[in-house]
Amino acid sequence: MGSNVTQKLIRDHLVSGEMIPSEEIGLRIDQTLTQDATGTMVMLELEAMGVERAKTEASAQYVDHNIIQSDSKNPDDHLFLQSATRKFGLYFSRPGNGVSHPVHMQRLAKPGKTLLGSDSHTCANGCMGMLAMGAGGIDVAMAIAGLPFYVKMPRIWGIKLTGELPEWVSAKDVILELLRRYDVKGGVGKVIEYYGPGLQHLSAMDRHVIANMGAELGATGTVFPSDEVIQDFLIRQQRENDWVELIADPDADYDLYDEINLSELEPLIAKPSSPGNVVPVREVVGRPIYQSYIGSSANPGYRDYAIVAEIVKGKQIADGVSFDINPSSRQILTDLVKHGHITNLISVGARLHQAGCNGCIGMGQAPATGRNSLRTTPRNFPGRSGTREDSVYLCSPETAAASAITGKITDPRTLNITYPQAYEPEYPSIDVDLLDTPLSAEEAKTVQLVKGPNIASIPTMDELADSIHVPILLKMGDNISTDEILAGGSRVLPYRSNLPEISKFTFEIIDDSYYEQAIKIRDQGGHGIIAGYNYGQGSSREHAALAPRYLGLRVAIVKDFARIHWQNLVNFGVLPLTFRQPEDYEQLMPGDLIQIDHIREQLRKGNQIEAIIAGKAIQLQHLLSPRQVEIMLAGGLINWVKNKQ
Amino acid sequence: MGSNVTQKLIRDHLVSGEMIPSEEIGLRIDQTLTQDATGTMVMLELEAMGVERAKTEASAQYVDHNIIQSDSKNPDDHLFLQSATRKFGLYFSRPGNGVSHPVHMQRLAKPGKTLLGSDSHTCANGCMGMLAMGAGGIDVAMAIAGLPFYVKMPRIWGIKLTGELPEWVSAKDVILELLRRYDVKGGVGKVIEYYGPGLQHLSAMDRHVIANMGAELGATGTVFPSDEVIQDFLIRQQRENDWVELIADPDADYDLYDEINLSELEPLIAKPSSPGNVVPVREVVGRPIYQSYIGSSANPGYRDYAIVAEIVKGKQIADGVSFDINPSSRQILTDLVKHGHITNLISVGARLHQAGCNGCIGMGQAPATGRNSLRTTPRNFPGRSGTREDSVYLCSPETAAASAITGKITDPRTLNITYPQAYEPEYPSIDVDLLDTPLSAEEAKTVQLVKGPNIASIPTMDELADSIHVPILLKMGDNISTDEILAGGSRVLPYRSNLPEISKFTFEIIDDSYYEQAIKIRDQGGHGIIAGYNYGQGSSREHAALAPRYLGLRVAIVKDFARIHWQNLVNFGVLPLTFRQPEDYEQLMPGDLIQIDHIREQLRKGNQIEAIIAGKAIQLQHLLSPRQVEIMLAGGLINWVKNKQ
Repeated sequence: MGSNVTQKLIRDHLVSGEMIPSEEIGLRIDQTLTQDATGTMVMLELEAMGVERAKTEASAQYVDHNIIQSDSKNPDDHLFLQSATRKFGLYFSRPGNGVSHPVHMQRLAKPGKTLLGSDSHTCANGCMGMLAMGAGGIDVAMAIAGLPFYVKMPRIWGIKLTGELPEWVSAKDVILELLRRYDVKGGVGKVIEYYGPGLQHLSAMDRHVIANMGAELGATGTVFPSDEVIQDFLIRQQRENDWVELIADPDADYDLYDEINLSELEPLIAKPSSPGNVVPVREVVGRPIYQSYIGSSANPGYRDYAIVAEIVKGKQIADGVSFDINPSSRQILTDLVKHGHITNLISVGARLHQAGCNGCIGMGQAPATGRNSLRTTPRNFPGRSGTREDSVYLCSPETAAASAITGKITDPRTLNITYPQAYEPEYPSIDVDLLDTPLSAEEAKTVQLVKGPNIASIPTMDELADSIHVPILLKMGDNISTDEILAGGSRVLPYRSNLPEISKFTFEIIDDSYYEQAIKIRDQGGHGIIAGYNYGQGSSREHAALAPRYLGLRVAIVKDFARIHWQNLVNFGVLPLTFRQPEDYEQLMPGDLIQIDHIREQLRKGNQIEAIIAGKAIQLQHLLSPRQVEIMLAGGLINWVKNKQ
Repeated sequence: MGSNVTQKLIRDHLVSGEMIPSEEIGLRIDQTLTQDATGTMVMLELEAMGVERAKTEASAQYVDHNIIQSDSKNPDDHLFLQSATRKFGLYFSRPGNGVSHPVHMQRLAKPGKTLLGSDSHTCANGCMGMLAMGAGGIDVAMAIAGLPFYVKMPRIWGIKLTGELPEWVSAKDVILELLRRYDVKGGVGKVIEYYGPGLQHLSAMDRHVIANMGAELGATGTVFPSDEVIQDFLIRQQRENDWVELIADPDADYDLYDEINLSELEPLIAKPSSPGNVVPVREVVGRPIYQSYIGSSANPGYRDYAIVAEIVKGKQIADGVSFDINPSSRQILTDLVKHGHITNLISVGARLHQAGCNGCIGMGQAPATGRNSLRTTPRNFPGRSGTREDSVYLCSPETAAASAITGKITDPRTLNITYPQAYEPEYPSIDVDLLDTPLSAEEAKTVQLVKGPNIASIPTMDELADSIHVPILLKMGDNISTDEILAGGSRVLPYRSNLPEISKFTFEIIDDSYYEQAIKIRDQGGHGIIAGYNYGQGSSREHAALAPRYLGLRVAIVKDFARIHWQNLVNFGVLPLTFRQPEDYEQLMPGDLIQIDHIREQLRKGNQIEAIIAGKAIQLQHLLSPRQVEIMLAGGLINWVKNKQ
């Protein structure tokens, strides 16, 4: 039987495991991308691991998230990142160059390759016939160091596209349709692969829009074939040599199936406050809006701005509407200026912002309290806009433009105008001036890392001791999220490059004396914590493992773990154990002493761990693979990698 | 003897006092401008005074300072300001329309008129043959209500301009030359009036550049004649009917004189961290730069961006330099796009920001720690950029552009290129779409103020009691600044529309228990404070009087006051008294009881006030004019105005 595109990509990069759904496989990673909000820690991890030079084919560091510079922290991070890319042999996309995903697509993405990125929308580049996946920072650091990425083999979900999009309906409505059908967990454990005759009418950037929001379905990745459309895209980007054909075999099969007839779609909109809360626009027309926001990696293409400019041309935005235009890249901005679209946008009253993520990740352009904001961005989680009581809708550029003119949510089909044409330029501007290419190994040798006062190297961590004798510092209930372990937000985020500083916020929400207690006994062996079910749910932030580890957390004993946090604990050398008898949890109290002896031997022998807690024998277990046991013994991934060098 | 332009303007608007230097004069105000950072309080003051409609010829509210929206506070303020302008009959310049000073100049400024603005750079519109002055918010509120502005009659300082600017030298270098000669206090108590044959070569926007930074000399105002250059400017702005000639009589005289031969000027630069720290650029060439920043009301014209675009055209900005372009208005941005300059700027690597004040007032684009930032902005006070350890230089667009290319401070004359031409467009775009015109009185009647959760009306304040029996809550030393009374910065500023919230920060730096103590006894008569010499120096912020008043401060007894804070205390009904025997200060302590009886009678009778403090008779005095005594008795300006209605 033939293979689908995803199977070909996986098979071509498989270094360990078997392609059986849910089995762990190891994949060779060809390219990586990091952005500034996660990238500083990745670079500090490379430093801590003693990596000398990226071993990938291409790794790029983008500065797109924190480009509003309210004080020196963000610009200091930018200079640090630039120095790190020079030292490690990475591309550096300077602040102002644009959002990682479209820039990577235009300048570096290659069909047939794997891409791992420390940004959940990395899947966007699946539009290029790549296996592109988001991951935690240290996973990307490992990939840069030339090590495989380990992931459970996904099920492959074939979505057949037929028909052709009607006027006033565009790619965003395709992915909104999938979210309408399957909601935000519909893609978990799956790679979504698109195929069928409907593909021929979707441009490369249309596919980017669809692939990008695979993240909102929870998918491991989104894959499109590399066909003539992608060839044409690369020719226009003056990179025709980077094209290879990659299409499914005629007799390819999928683990799951669905079909979308593009001809039957209508304008859709995700209501507040979940990307899965999708209804037809016509069901919510007439609601007054405060803001129409155009931009982000979810609608990044030239077309997505040009169509808006054409729709609003010669009109006027409604009184009281903030019409925010956020170009996704400098290259696209240049073409939008060149072809007159920016003039049209400004002259109707647009606010033109610098190229970058900006409002999409709550960095500026927050809406007024309780007022409706229409956005072409991928997410409308509560408060993500920066406004606590926000009311954000996600929609296509067509719907956002129509609503900007009328001042209320408007089905663009009801505008009394001809659907404008807005094709990509035949010869787009090629802009590489703010994308610094890697230095040669020779040149890189003399580069020093430039660290502002808020950038602290990751401290050295010791290997796993053979016995742990530590007190329980916290006893927590079920469903503790990583937000409770280490909060996000504007108070905490500026310290993302500074582990000693950010660690002061650890467990603050649960027990604000934790930091003081933990630091006091850090050098006397550290401490442990106890929790219930689903410990560490939510965001994948690696700081939620790294910061407690820095404060001396050696062992977490819980009823069960959420998957990503469990992985992060392993990566940073905190022993994650579960009770064999969950009822043992009840009798343990903060202050009780945990004693585990001969740990190294116990870990290697099997998955059962004998402990004495509060003087009683307690049966525990671990779920580590042999590879992970070695990582744990070394004191975490950084040490493990260093030891191998 | 004939009159100079300033004398004509003053005489034409004089409603009280005599034109004798240092005597208090009252001036009729024709126009006002407010910006968003100060305007919300002005609008709340209008509400509190029960003002129904602006009595000026034109009053405009601009949104240019707080246009980065990190949460709902700024956009909520914008909606509040828009509703207030609709209610009170003001122009409203929507967010994204640009910086108040150039927009006002292009759309509303009129020769022969007075302009009062709650922004220190209001003097910029002196370029239009206006008497344009910055003032505190409540002074502007009074002017909107139709009341005169009171100010000490300035001395008039005639600066004769001769010759013509050489290539690579522009208007910014003219004002930097004055700052080089006289430093930042050189203009205190003066209006600077420019005259002479050199004027004919300076465009209206060149004059704006020079007038704007009169603020940095500490001048009360800057005045240029309204001549053919201004007529030409207004014709191009399609406002020729707004032009009147206003020039000095041939035999006009000045109180003080100086002369600048434009032909002899060279590129100048203000070194960190004072606008008065001026040297020739050639003395500091070669220092590496992190940033070249183009924008602000100090270089707001089309020419100032076009010349930069022409200089950098076809080149590339230096590696590691952040080249920030901040358009001053949407109208100017439209023309820069139309004539290809934006394309040139973007293609060399510029970061294009939305139109507004932005980096000039530390709202974004802060430089990296300790790195040199070259800016065409008016101020480089330490930390104003947002970065605590900043290193900001002020210079012309020519110098900033040349340095962006080389990556180090560069005398633009040493670039090996022909000095480019960059004239204003013959027919500039006229853009009024984001400048809402006032509603009719009829329409305004139904308008309700829109207040987000962070916008609180100014509480009603009682009139002055006939006796004060209050404890001393704080005893302070000499030179207490308004920054110590109520700090600025990003932690405090978001509460500028919320007196109850912002008051929690009062005196925090001096005694962080002040708020708790004051609020506890507020309803038992309030409290007093004691201080030494120069109490209330520094910034003019009116919150430094309003917040303590809100917390129950009734009397401030000091050795002497700084002028503006003294005025603010009067305006908000806090009795400002000084010791007749400064040594009495020594024997008083926090907790001592201040008793002043029959105050109303004592104030009206003369300037001596008898008090008993800590049981001892203490001789005090006040310096209030009869007008100010009435304001004080009413409990402040707001009550005084309300009582008159």
